[in-house]
Amino acid sequence: MEPAADELPLGRLEAFSDGVFAIAITLLVLELGVPVGAGEHLLSSILHEWPAMLAYVTSFLTIGTVWLQHSAITDALRAADVILYRLNLLVLLLASFLPFPTKLVSEFIGQRDPERVAAIFYGVTLLVLALALTAFVRYAAEHRRLVKDQVEAETIETALAHQPRFLLYGVGIGVSVLFPTVGVALYLVTALYLGIPARTLHRLLRGARSD
Amino acid sequence: MEPAADELPLGRLEAFSDGVFAIAITLLVLELGVPVGAGEHLLSSILHEWPAMLAYVTSFLTIGTVWLQHSAITDALRAADVILYRLNLLVLLLASFLPFPTKLVSEFIGQRDPERVAAIFYGVTLLVLALALTAFVRYAAEHRRLVKDQVEAETIETALAHQPRFLLYGVGIGVSVLFPTVGVALYLVTALYLGIPARTLHRLLRGARSD
Amino acid sequence: MEPAADELPLGRLEAFSDGVFAIAITLLVLELGVPVGAGEHLLSSILHEWPAMLAYVTSFLTIGTVWLQHSAITDALRAADVILYRLNLLVLLLASFLPFPTKLVSEFIGQRDPERVAAIFYGVTLLVLALALTAFVRYAAEHRRLVKDQVEAETIETALAHQPRFLLYGVGIGVSVLFPTVGVALYLVTALYLGIPARTLHRLLRGARSD
Amino acid sequence: MEPAADELPLGRLEAFSDGVFAIAITLLVLELGVPVGAGEHLLSSILHEWPAMLAYVTSFLTIGTVWLQHSAITDALRAADVILYRLNLLVLLLASFLPFPTKLVSEFIGQRDPERVAAIFYGVTLLVLALALTAFVRYAAEHRRLVKDQVEAETIETALAHQPRFLLYGVGIGVSVLFPTVGVALYLVTALYLGIPARTLHRLLRGARSD
Repeated sequence: MEPAADELPLGRLEAFSDGVFAIAITLLVLELGVPVGAGEHLLSSILHEWPAMLAYVTSFLTIGTVWLQHSAITDALRAADVILYRLNLLVLLLASFLPFPTKLVSEFIGQRDPERVAAIFYGVTLLVLALALTAFVRYAAEHRRLVKDQVEAETIETALAHQPRFLLYGVGIGVSVLFPTVGVALYLVTALYLGIPARTLHRLLRGARSD
Repeated sequence: MEPAADELPLGRLEAFSDGVFAIAITLLVLELGVPVGAGEHLLSSILHEWPAMLAYVTSFLTIGTVWLQHSAITDALRAADVILYRLNLLVLLLASFLPFPTKLVSEFIGQRDPERVAAIFYGVTLLVLALALTAFVRYAAEHRRLVKDQVEAETIETALAHQPRFLLYGVGIGVSVLFPTVGVALYLVTALYLGIPARTLHRLLRGARSD
Repeated sequence: MEPAADELPLGRLEAFSDGVFAIAITLLVLELGVPVGAGEHLLSSILHEWPAMLAYVTSFLTIGTVWLQHSAITDALRAADVILYRLNLLVLLLASFLPFPTKLVSEFIGQRDPERVAAIFYGVTLLVLALALTAFVRYAAEHRRLVKDQVEAETIETALAHQPRFLLYGVGIGVSVLFPTVGVALYLVTALYLGIPARTLHRLLRGARSD
Repeated sequence: MEPAADELPLGRLEAFSDGVFAIAITLLVLELGVPVGAGEHLLSSILHEWPAMLAYVTSFLTIGTVWLQHSAITDALRAADVILYRLNLLVLLLASFLPFPTKLVSEFIGQRDPERVAAIFYGVTLLVLALALTAFVRYAAEHRRLVKDQVEAETIETALAHQPRFLLYGVGIGVSVLFPTVGVALYLVTALYLGIPARTLHRLLRGARSD
């Protein structure tokens, strides 16, 4: 199995992706602002901003989790090709788009009609991001020559499969129709759940120490 | 052919360029905003923002494509020199300037006179960016000592030549005079076309699987 | 002591962290603005912005110091694991959140009640960031297999221990209740103190030259 | 000459610096905006924004030049120490502060009194940045153990010495007192001059081809 002519190095893909994830995750803070005239009662103004904080933490942890999984996947690869580069660009497009629905949720939670639209729009973006990441993984897993020799194809293919991410986002979107704030909270729980893989949970519960 | 004294390492050039491309591509989202008073009908407000979305996706894919080509080119190089560093800075200047015409298009599409100016200004920026990238490639290809031994000079010189990018942007600018929105859509199609090289299209059409 | 199966490479963690620290530290400048109508007396307007400058320099040096210590710590490691990745994400969450309390301090210093809230909120964020960084270090130090062979566990464990950072931030928060501006100045002094380790101070005082 | 115990790796310093330079240079575009009500005559509005464009290009080329020189210097080094890390942080503080005086120049050029203050404030920032970069180089050059064996100490020490940067910025500041716009133009010329070292100019003039 000699390397195909159209193989591309992983290094640039990783560096560029790290950059985009790092920027998207850090730009989120720019949307946190205190309403004009907040001076009088600053503490209550900050507390009043809880939807913005909820959306901030949810998007931060979602991007952080996507980055964790992206790292784990590319760590199992030995090369990329032009299609993987483009699938990666799609993942980055959606991850770097996230600050926009985050802003909508921050702004409109608490306002009857728009909060529903904002929470659903946010959830759909998260769902499409999860789909893009899955396509990225599937493509890599199906092209054996891109994967390191010592990695079993099955491992990478099932890396995301055991996690019911589509179901979770689907439920979040459904709940958002009636209770938008609960829907956003579900997206947060999903990010936490996806970010802490089963075996980590097991190890934490067993209190195992690796040394 | 011993290395000239004024050779500079590629690593920093790549790292810095990855950084600038990653930031420019991620900053685009900051221009997406919902007009004041959008609360009442948020969904229609978001849909009403379609010019901003069109400009966002166009600029994202353009920068993504420039990054793809930049990666492919520097991957064929073995070193840089001071002039290549400066040509690279010119490419970065134009790429990181792109959020400004993007903002103009987002804001003025739909307003008779200014939308024409915005679409033409956007197209001219894209054209000059394409020229700068071509100058970068030409310079590298003409200085054999900068190119890896196993790469044929012809390969890198023709890397961009087969793609009629100047013609495409020229047509887009011309169309923008009469139909600005169509012009911007042409820029988007150009980015997609440039981002998917001929051989990838062939492979996709043939449905070939590399493994 | 063979490497555990769940080890993760340090490279991506470092690259991603460098990105987030670099962005958070650079975004701070966006909050520096000149009030509307400043044209008349620009110089006095700029000088009048001293609380913003104080907050800017304090946050810049705090993030810079955290980055310095993060570099020193990961330089002593040979690998990471999933928990260290998550503790790192917590450090990044707090570091990239810092521009928000910085903005509050910039805006409200000089306004009686809100300045107290802003200075305390800022200090609490700094304290929690210091706690997260300590948790990151402790976890690494307690898992010998993550540390390079030639590094003594004690070295890394005590890396932060000799610096009374919690006490310093505690005092800063306490002082902020009565004198918010003095409290913020104490945070600045703390960042300077933490950024210049004892042995550097010694060397500087002795005027020793290493060559 | 064995390595001292307090040596720090260059890699992180370079990665972090590349990040900060890349972000500072890319954030500049955010200050480019079209005044409200520009729709009517967009083209003249854009042209009317020439001070913003002048300041944008000047700051972009200044940061680009600082990055070029920073790359060339660290390329000659083999290690860093804690003091070099801190001098580097000072360079980054000033480079990432640059968007603020850039914004002042963009806004106030054309307004009699404030434009003078803005242009002088900008020049002083550029001068202090040049001083910090010089301190960084001097420190490295004076600590032989930080420099690669094959590099002559003299080379690095004189890397910046032949360029009369302090004089040029001094003249720019002086001119700004009477003609602020000319002063800013001088800063731009200085960035171009510093970015194109003498030997490059010679080679360009001779039309020499290196292969």
